[in-house]
Amino acid sequence: MIDFDKLDKLIHEKGRLSIMTLLAARPDWKYQDLKAELNMSDGNLITHLRTLYKAGYVSMTKEVEKRPQTSYALTAAGRKAFEDYLAVLEQILKSGRG
Amino acid sequence: MIDFDKLDKLIHEKGRLSIMTLLAARPDWKYQDLKAELNMSDGNLITHLRTLYKAGYVSMTKEVEKRPQTSYALTAAGRKAFEDYLAVLEQILKSGRG
Repeated sequence: MIDFDKLDKLIHEKGRLSIMTLLAARPDWKYQDLKAELNMSDGNLITHLRTLYKAGYVSMTKEVEKRPQTSYALTAAGRKAFEDYLAVLEQILKSGRG
Repeated sequence: MIDFDKLDKLIHEKGRLSIMTLLAARPDWKYQDLKAELNMSDGNLITHLRTLYKAGYVSMTKEVEKRPQTSYALTAAGRKAFEDYLAVLEQILKSGRG
């Protein structure tokens, strides 16, 4: 039996799921690169990143050389949470594909 | 690039995702069996089933022999929508697992 309660709400929301998937695919992302990949307003993107940061899933690094920019990366806790989330997706896929 | 906009909102919601996953696993379900599998109140379960019915994803069959009961099944459109949804999950898994 699949435990749907394990589908972490913080990750399951579509916008945050897209962010977590991108962050999991590379060691770190500059804000502008994230924004270029996602079909999302600055307001939504920043709100979602802040939610993930507050949950401890995402780290933020502000660089002040030249022009300031912020980079984002998964924390160890964020990677673990995402792995747990993917494990549920895998069960859904196995069940759905028989 | 994964198209997260293809994550059908009707299916992505956790409660409806659990219902769709169960419905996809068997030809049809009696209401009481669905309820026994899901950690959900009658109110939530009926509301989600009605949403999926209105979307054309789920069919309802009322049996009137003996005591009345209702059975639920995926429609062809529901199966197609669920397959499309699973295809996005698969991309997320592939991306997340590198």
